[in-house]
Amino acid sequence: MESKTRKMKNKGLAAVDTFSFLQAVRVECPLVHHISNWVTIYDCAQVVKSFGASPVMAHASEEAGEMAAIAASLVLNIGTLSTDLIESMKIATFSANKRNIPVILDICGAGASSFRDRKCRELLDERRIDIIKGNASEIERIAGLDVHTKGVDSAPLEPGNDIRQVAASLARARHCTVVVTGKEDIITDANRTFIVRNGHEIMSSVVGTGCMATSVIGTFAGAVPERITEAAVAGLICYEVAAELAVRQAGGPASFKQTMLDCIFNLSMEELLSLQRVEECSLEGS
Amino acid sequence: MESKTRKMKNKGLAAVDTFSFLQAVRVECPLVHHISNWVTIYDCAQVVKSFGASPVMAHASEEAGEMAAIAASLVLNIGTLSTDLIESMKIATFSANKRNIPVILDICGAGASSFRDRKCRELLDERRIDIIKGNASEIERIAGLDVHTKGVDSAPLEPGNDIRQVAASLARARHCTVVVTGKEDIITDANRTFIVRNGHEIMSSVVGTGCMATSVIGTFAGAVPERITEAAVAGLICYEVAAELAVRQAGGPASFKQTMLDCIFNLSMEELLSLQRVEECSLEGS
Amino acid sequence: MESKTRKMKNKGLAAVDTFSFLQAVRVECPLVHHISNWVTIYDCAQVVKSFGASPVMAHASEEAGEMAAIAASLVLNIGTLSTDLIESMKIATFSANKRNIPVILDICGAGASSFRDRKCRELLDERRIDIIKGNASEIERIAGLDVHTKGVDSAPLEPGNDIRQVAASLARARHCTVVVTGKEDIITDANRTFIVRNGHEIMSSVVGTGCMATSVIGTFAGAVPERITEAAVAGLICYEVAAELAVRQAGGPASFKQTMLDCIFNLSMEELLSLQRVEECSLEGS
Repeated sequence: MESKTRKMKNKGLAAVDTFSFLQAVRVECPLVHHISNWVTIYDCAQVVKSFGASPVMAHASEEAGEMAAIAASLVLNIGTLSTDLIESMKIATFSANKRNIPVILDICGAGASSFRDRKCRELLDERRIDIIKGNASEIERIAGLDVHTKGVDSAPLEPGNDIRQVAASLARARHCTVVVTGKEDIITDANRTFIVRNGHEIMSSVVGTGCMATSVIGTFAGAVPERITEAAVAGLICYEVAAELAVRQAGGPASFKQTMLDCIFNLSMEELLSLQRVEECSLEGS
Repeated sequence: MESKTRKMKNKGLAAVDTFSFLQAVRVECPLVHHISNWVTIYDCAQVVKSFGASPVMAHASEEAGEMAAIAASLVLNIGTLSTDLIESMKIATFSANKRNIPVILDICGAGASSFRDRKCRELLDERRIDIIKGNASEIERIAGLDVHTKGVDSAPLEPGNDIRQVAASLARARHCTVVVTGKEDIITDANRTFIVRNGHEIMSSVVGTGCMATSVIGTFAGAVPERITEAAVAGLICYEVAAELAVRQAGGPASFKQTMLDCIFNLSMEELLSLQRVEECSLEGS
Repeated sequence: MESKTRKMKNKGLAAVDTFSFLQAVRVECPLVHHISNWVTIYDCAQVVKSFGASPVMAHASEEAGEMAAIAASLVLNIGTLSTDLIESMKIATFSANKRNIPVILDICGAGASSFRDRKCRELLDERRIDIIKGNASEIERIAGLDVHTKGVDSAPLEPGNDIRQVAASLARARHCTVVVTGKEDIITDANRTFIVRNGHEIMSSVVGTGCMATSVIGTFAGAVPERITEAAVAGLICYEVAAELAVRQAGGPASFKQTMLDCIFNLSMEELLSLQRVEECSLEGS
């Protein structure tokens, strides 16, 4: 069950390619429809805007389907879910599925309550989700492992679980791309698996960095919908390179977040070229 | 249908007068009741507070009328509307109309869904709205033109539409003041039309600048309710002069927003005098 | 009814002790469950995170009880209350009361509408609230005095009311700790009364400083649940010392808030030792 990593220099997601995804976002300016949570809703919108795209946050069941019908991608986040919000998510996803635009689900807080687990499973069973995104314990939970989470923060991994294998199995079972964020990010569609090693530990001291990552993935997937796995990789790299640039100027978590949003706005190819750390990895036995 | 602009130096809204509106806000400290959206609700409150006034955000139908009954003005924003919120808006507006306090409606996202269009029209038909505020495509939509919008961002103008004339016609038809924000802001009550040329293009890269503009207008109208059109002009000038001051110190959209809120707090008569750009314009054929 | 203050140097809450509470927060990393308002929900979460603890914001009635059952404390804030939110608060508080974890209620806006007053009283009558927190006029209102408030900002005190005595009486009547924030903060459980004189007046120009104070109290009470009155004192000191550090670097209310959240993250024993201003006071006739 051990996974092996091999570096694939200048292949797949070399910095120049990452930059081409970023350019696609800036040129296409995709409309990213969100049904999100009430805590980080502003930051989710602003991170999309900082990348040069257009966020729209619309959760009323009366308009959720219509809004998804004019969007380039749909981002769902269950951070502060309710029965009503889940219904709107289903309506929007139905509309998104019909148009084949990417649907990204942040399983924020999965495992923290049986209600969350049940509603996540409903969404996954009843609709087509193109990208599932969570931290390690959330992904393990949705993959059916018996983990215990602590609210919306990641819990320590159960010994013996290879989270890369868990992610790839979930991707295979659900026919989707799975993104696990953490010290290293795993992006896998079962066929291809990427590891992104950018970012900084201060991100775990900022509320909303996980939610923003999902909105970024939605933005990149909306701009390049025919290559969503690589789009997710490129989006995470851009986001986390900006984080590395920001931490140099920040005095703490709050100024860090603001500076990161500025750095995203100004992100250049040179910065990506010098800082990007990504590998493609092959999973044994998969 | 072409509109002509003539400069009216030192008249109507000279900087010294703009400053007297700002002083009225700081002295009166109006209570500005909001029924707003979940994305920019914090910034709407903070911009009011930065100007020295008191925001209150209360949307429960059980208290919306009572809260409007102690407020100096009422700001409605349909950014994340729902049937429940619209009902509360009607209750609050009924209470505001009885007391003749100014009601300002931000038609955020009008045209993006039929639900929004319908609910906007309901509010306008069933209650008295004193100021309608939107970007060009939203105002065109509410004025009955056939425009297509993209989420909550402004769409390109249809060729042949003179947005100033559209705004003035809507003001006449609805017996209200109409505010169109954009590269130039139009403020018209059909009799008088003002053009404000302050602000900076980075504002379009910040989520909530449009919503904050509406809260600012509500604040100034609450402080000087007998002159709401000029109050709207003065509020926009103050807000956008602060934006121009802020952009000089900002590294991107996020630091820009923060600096703008600081600059609003510290705004001086000298800054207004040196930066204010406003004209009164006469609309031919109106 | 006059209250006398006597300084108790190096006793009870000397800086070294305050720091031990702060260390408890950083080591225990309590999970602080919030059912909060839609305006300041992000800042409430971020202030908890900046202190090194874990916020979780979950308001759905289906999971409110389960979430409180894994939390170290529960923070309720009625800033944008609705009937649904109050029901979830009752469910969560029932669960918290069973487990004897501290429940902190911010009576934000009490007195601004009869709905708020009624719902506050329901919560206090039907559940056990361990700490009631408000500004002077809100506390007076909940104590049954006839005050009039202005939205969510504090109104001038009625002449003749000694707010310390009002707070102590309320604490006695409700068998709880009462916290009154303002120029001086009062923390009393009727037996012991503390006065904290830290903080800065710019806090009243920032939306959410009161709500964040409540989340801080919840965080400290969650880390040291057997000493909630002193935990509330220690939390307020840390929060307001950070505010004093921040104001030195801030250009206005928005940069102040951000810098304060950074200063909280970096807060040291030396800073507490040099800036803490707290007294224990004895209330005559109590």
